Amino acid sequence: MSVQAIAWSPSGAVRIVDQRALPEAQIERDLEGGEAVADAIRTMQVRGAPLIGIAAAMGLVAGTRELRGAARDAFLARLAPLVELLAATRPTAVNLRWALDRMARVAAATPGDGSALWERLHAEATTIWEEDRAMCRRIGEAGLSLVPDGANVLTHCNAGALATGGIGTALAPLYLAHDAGRKLHVFVDETRPVLQGARLTAWELTHAGIPCTVIADGAAGALMRQAKVDLVIVGADRIAANGDFANKIGTYSLAVLALHHGVPFYCAAPSSTIDLALADGDGIPIEQRAPEEVKTVAGRPVAPAAAAALNPAFDVTPARYVTGYVTDRGLRRPPFGEGDRA
Amino acid sequence: MSVQAIAWSPSGAVRIVDQRALPEAQIERDLEGGEAVADAIRTMQVRGAPLIGIAAAMGLVAGTRELRGAARDAFLARLAPLVELLAATRPTAVNLRWALDRMARVAAATPGDGSALWERLHAEATTIWEEDRAMCRRIGEAGLSLVPDGANVLTHCNAGALATGGIGTALAPLYLAHDAGRKLHVFVDETRPVLQGARLTAWELTHAGIPCTVIADGAAGALMRQAKVDLVIVGADRIAANGDFANKIGTYSLAVLALHHGVPFYCAAPSSTIDLALADGDGIPIEQRAPEEVKTVAGRPVAPAAAAALNPAFDVTPARYVTGYVTDRGLRRPPFGEGDRA
Repeated sequence: MSVQAIAWSPSGAVRIVDQRALPEAQIERDLEGGEAVADAIRTMQVRGAPLIGIAAAMGLVAGTRELRGAARDAFLARLAPLVELLAATRPTAVNLRWALDRMARVAAATPGDGSALWERLHAEATTIWEEDRAMCRRIGEAGLSLVPDGANVLTHCNAGALATGGIGTALAPLYLAHDAGRKLHVFVDETRPVLQGARLTAWELTHAGIPCTVIADGAAGALMRQAKVDLVIVGADRIAANGDFANKIGTYSLAVLALHHGVPFYCAAPSSTIDLALADGDGIPIEQRAPEEVKTVAGRPVAPAAAAALNPAFDVTPARYVTGYVTDRGLRRPPFGEGDRA
Repeated sequence: MSVQAIAWSPSGAVRIVDQRALPEAQIERDLEGGEAVADAIRTMQVRGAPLIGIAAAMGLVAGTRELRGAARDAFLARLAPLVELLAATRPTAVNLRWALDRMARVAAATPGDGSALWERLHAEATTIWEEDRAMCRRIGEAGLSLVPDGANVLTHCNAGALATGGIGTALAPLYLAHDAGRKLHVFVDETRPVLQGARLTAWELTHAGIPCTVIADGAAGALMRQAKVDLVIVGADRIAANGDFANKIGTYSLAVLALHHGVPFYCAAPSSTIDLALADGDGIPIEQRAPEEVKTVAGRPVAPAAAAALNPAFDVTPARYVTGYVTDRGLRRPPFGEGDRA
């Protein structure tokens, strides 16, 4: 059974699993308003492109609970800066902006006072979450045929239940294959610097009873050379119209290694990740995170204080390295058009 | 100025930089006898195959200082168990056994009492150290032309001054280029799981005033795609006659990425690393280390206790990926023969 990464608390706060505490502890946290959600996204208590979109939408709702008695103008005046605060937390993922724009449009289009607006936003955020759960399942179904019985699958970072409102994107086909009784084994890139693979993917696979083996990121090439990897499946934070996509740093290296060794390489993502406004991957902004994420581990320095560190959170993998795109609209190939988006 | 990893203390003890404390603190430790040196090797206060051999030879000398007034038989009777104690610290390290055997042979072949034996051993240990320093310098000279002014160099793990008695192997050409006034910049793979790149290579380069930037191992591919890497240079633990070589896990992935991007990829090592008894890399035994090195960082779990981890310490890079071999016998190409060994 996969873990549930987000939910409403009984009082209407946003209940999350604090992903910083994993794998040592499973701590649930109730985020009472937009500021708390923004902070949780910024500090990666919640992460994963779909999940931060859902969290942001739910954060708008939690953050306007007190305004249910307010006039329409007062409600909207408070909503706008919350939207901007949440949008500014992470620049690369398209889902965040998409979810917030959708919420803002719905608010603008809904007549009535604070109470009516809030009820509508609550319903819309819940719909975004439920659509995400359904989207995950459709991705799983689209990718199920790619995961034969006995498959050894390599994945990077976390594109699983902990990154979404449902059973994940890259991991969704694996959950469905496991549910269908297929034997599979997953090599999990630990995914430095933030170790989402070791900390999150290995945790949620183990939690679901799927056998997995954590490896240092540098070990993937040697495993492919030994023919121990049957396929690679990763998520995406943004996909350009030509199929170039951004994902966690290290994804591009894996794609080159997979091509070199003839290993199929799949990108699994919601169709909402496709950004038709971007012709190719050169236009995807790459978030540069603090050097300290590389220079420290668990608060302890692992590099000299005087040394520089480069910490791009993502890299871009050109479309020609990708065997196929597993989306909620099925297995797709670029160039993408309106028909590829949900 | 590169760091000096080992030296005689004024009183004749073995002075080392305690590498466990790096990069947080530079702690010098005077090891007063064979037992202290054995403990330092076992606990990785000193590491790096050449450095371990030198430390063991010097440990025999420090450990027999009190026996300079002893009779020949008493001296040799004390020496033998010290040799065995030191040899047992890292039983797989070839240089360690080689250096200890050389010291034992010299002692047996030297006439006279404790005083004469000790003087001879002191000279021999110093010679082993000086030969290593000279070897490093010759590697540096052989590789100097590969590092033009303004070069951006990528390296992996630590094959520097902290692994040898001199200026290192893979880093030796960089030290000489820096000394020659060439501007250079080094991207340092942090090198999970043990982080020798971040902890040791970044520290010794910073100590020497060579600009460097630590990166997560997964970032190397993206840097090459952006044409930010002019050459890759790494060390080797063993080189087969056909040029296949074993080095720290992750080296093979780098070699594939370098080939894919047209980036020159060099292997720098003492000619004694060439093992003519091995036809190719398939015969190189790969040490599998404890899963806990992957599953914990600085004592803190980074993967669930129930998850498996795979921890091969090395991988094998086939010769076809290697642009050239930088050795103390010059720039060489395989297949290797007796003329390629010192």
